[in-house]
Amino acid sequence: VTTKYGQLTPALIAKLKKIIGETNVLTQEEEREKYTCDEMPVPKPHLPDVVVKPTDTESVAKVMVFANEHKIPVTPRGGGTGLVGGAVPIFGGILLSLERMNKIIEIDTHNFVAVVEAGVTLSDLYKAAEEHGLYYPVYPGETNATVGGTVATNAGGMRAVKYGVTRHFVLGLTAVLSSGQIIRTGGKFVKYTTGYDLTQLLVGSEGTLAIITETILRLNTPPAKTEVLFIPFPSIEGAIDTVPEILRLGNLPAGIEFMERDIIEKVREHTGKEIPHHEHPAFLMIILETDSQEALHEAARAIQEVATKHGAIDVFLPPSERAKRELLEAREQFYPVMKRLGILEIGDAVVPRSRIPDFVKRIKLISTEHGMPIIAYGHAGDGNVHLHPLGHGMDREEWNKKLPGVFKDIYQAAKELGGTVSGEHGIGIDKKAYLSANVDKDLIQTMVSIKKALDPNLILNPGKILNIPR
Amino acid sequence: VTTKYGQLTPALIAKLKKIIGETNVLTQEEEREKYTCDEMPVPKPHLPDVVVKPTDTESVAKVMVFANEHKIPVTPRGGGTGLVGGAVPIFGGILLSLERMNKIIEIDTHNFVAVVEAGVTLSDLYKAAEEHGLYYPVYPGETNATVGGTVATNAGGMRAVKYGVTRHFVLGLTAVLSSGQIIRTGGKFVKYTTGYDLTQLLVGSEGTLAIITETILRLNTPPAKTEVLFIPFPSIEGAIDTVPEILRLGNLPAGIEFMERDIIEKVREHTGKEIPHHEHPAFLMIILETDSQEALHEAARAIQEVATKHGAIDVFLPPSERAKRELLEAREQFYPVMKRLGILEIGDAVVPRSRIPDFVKRIKLISTEHGMPIIAYGHAGDGNVHLHPLGHGMDREEWNKKLPGVFKDIYQAAKELGGTVSGEHGIGIDKKAYLSANVDKDLIQTMVSIKKALDPNLILNPGKILNIPR
Repeated sequence: VTTKYGQLTPALIAKLKKIIGETNVLTQEEEREKYTCDEMPVPKPHLPDVVVKPTDTESVAKVMVFANEHKIPVTPRGGGTGLVGGAVPIFGGILLSLERMNKIIEIDTHNFVAVVEAGVTLSDLYKAAEEHGLYYPVYPGETNATVGGTVATNAGGMRAVKYGVTRHFVLGLTAVLSSGQIIRTGGKFVKYTTGYDLTQLLVGSEGTLAIITETILRLNTPPAKTEVLFIPFPSIEGAIDTVPEILRLGNLPAGIEFMERDIIEKVREHTGKEIPHHEHPAFLMIILETDSQEALHEAARAIQEVATKHGAIDVFLPPSERAKRELLEAREQFYPVMKRLGILEIGDAVVPRSRIPDFVKRIKLISTEHGMPIIAYGHAGDGNVHLHPLGHGMDREEWNKKLPGVFKDIYQAAKELGGTVSGEHGIGIDKKAYLSANVDKDLIQTMVSIKKALDPNLILNPGKILNIPR
Repeated sequence: VTTKYGQLTPALIAKLKKIIGETNVLTQEEEREKYTCDEMPVPKPHLPDVVVKPTDTESVAKVMVFANEHKIPVTPRGGGTGLVGGAVPIFGGILLSLERMNKIIEIDTHNFVAVVEAGVTLSDLYKAAEEHGLYYPVYPGETNATVGGTVATNAGGMRAVKYGVTRHFVLGLTAVLSSGQIIRTGGKFVKYTTGYDLTQLLVGSEGTLAIITETILRLNTPPAKTEVLFIPFPSIEGAIDTVPEILRLGNLPAGIEFMERDIIEKVREHTGKEIPHHEHPAFLMIILETDSQEALHEAARAIQEVATKHGAIDVFLPPSERAKRELLEAREQFYPVMKRLGILEIGDAVVPRSRIPDFVKRIKLISTEHGMPIIAYGHAGDGNVHLHPLGHGMDREEWNKKLPGVFKDIYQAAKELGGTVSGEHGIGIDKKAYLSANVDKDLIQTMVSIKKALDPNLILNPGKILNIPR
């Protein structure tokens, strides 16, 4: 890296302390060490020069004015639960943690809106909405993630089939530009055509265009009933071919997950959970959320009929609340179990959902060609596939060397099938190479133009998403 | 206007004809005259120097390379049904009509996606989706609008409560930048976090950042049942206060419209339509779309209960399909009847839906202060209010002089109530003054930076949305 940024000299650090208060600036190495990584599976730790923890938007603005003047890189950080290194301060400089901006400002029960600071965790948001009889349906799984982080990465998750992703729930933002200017976009309304939609531009921009400090989120009414169906199939093709037929029934399921025997076996083995029908080759797990018991019955009945017609071996309906919870928990254990299995990476491609069987076939070919086991599972209802190239029993260095080639082929396959590099994790540092290899040059150049227009000194989360020489 | 653009000399017109074919370039005045206006109520006609009608994206790209080289303004145009002058070539130059790009490329019944060229009309899209057992739920009312136009303005309409607006159905775009570069964004999937979401940036940008030539749209399954409820109330406050209670029932209505006696009386008078309960002061019209007859009954029953509790005078359920159609048609006649009443404008503010009663009160005060009758009605479920300052019986010049002051106060009131200038019509030329008066300077400056980054010569639909000196 040849990029030259300004250095945080002791004099500048003193100035920064004066600007936003001594207690909001951490300089001790042991304090800074907690901010060197996020949850990227193969971590590349980087120590920030200072950590600042502002408590309000105005302080964030002051930090940005300072950083812009002195050309200091600023890496914003929410819960640090990202999977692509988006919150890692690869150029040092200032790590700006939003953790103290964790106020739930308002749950508006007239307009079904939550106004919350960026550092609020998803679990606190879920709770606050519930206490007011409302519901935030976006469920990426990691409830320690902060709202700001999920907005910056446009987090998705299991319930996207029915509800959409984070983007569809963000009505407005308060954000600080690299210049220190504060912008307030959108409002407590869904309809909005008042110039360019900067809200939607900032969603998914991973902190490279602005620092999100406050969000206006749409809430729903909670579902009256939820149910889980677990459906074994003799093949992955049979399972996937059933999906459009299920979606055609109307009354969309919240989520439709697919998985093969490999991951089910590993979860059984490592959690001791009993999973019904675990001996079959492929599965759909269908999550239903409906407004009434009758609607639930009707949906389950219709899905059973369609699945059976498409060769399902059985349609398992958990006999108790506990059995239902067990099934959902088994699904949530996929990633933790994979992690416990040792060194591994996580891929996050998206393809049109009809192409999932072809994509899974290609993945198996790639696995054979590279001599690396790959486990694939994911969101059949929306084409989002997660991939774990496995490394146990393999020399770590050898594995590390092989990995880029494996992912290159995987994302190339996704592209050829009409898909792309990231469905919900983002690009960060982990996927930059695959973005530039698989996304049109003109599209990337357009992104670079926007980045330079909003952050001419390239100080906001530098080195993420795009490679721009400074 | 002091902005200087290149001139289309006869030599340049000859060059343009060579580039995309003589038959695709119209130069005769009588041919060009059809392209001087859109449906903006108080028209300011402008004659383009030439009209080009490309038949494919590559031709659009060639036109843009030419225009960019010679600094010729280019105004893209879809169906010409916009209400804010967005398709009016106010600097002359090239009017680029997408009317020949009207191919429905694919209705994908596996992924529930339509791939269509920008010049396809909504009515053709509705029909094509229906023929494949699918449904495009965005319904702005004007079915001669083109898909490209509705994407460029992020059109909304009556069914936004349940389904959202155009933005929520656009999964990907093919678009031509001012440089002539062709970009392809998104794909046949909902989950997407692969760099900045240029799809969402272009939606609602009114042809000022790129020319949209092709779209990938999400489709739904069609509702099994639809119903309309017409509910008279003793006051507008009573009607609006019922709305959050209705939304809390779950199973969202497709649309919740509010109106007062004034507009109902005018529609009765001018269409001869019989409207039940027309003598009452305020009304909600609720459009239900459900997946089953039982769900419809249950929703209607629950709404009846809530409305009655909130003082509804009656809950009218049309006794026949014909009566139902008549009611919906009466609602669709609001704007045509207003138009027939003579000179008038149409406003399109949005406020948080809980603030509609306050906003209506403010409008009545503004009406009194300015001595100008104003009719207001709109989308109670999403806070989008349409306004007609009426001009009949008033001298046109006097009315024209008064109008900006009336709208200034209206949009100022919307802003004070947490709302903004346009919910679904866009800014175009008609609302530029209100945008710059009511939207934060830093937000506008950010938009200007993006515009300049993507269109440095300011040739794409110049003079729309933003005032940028060249």
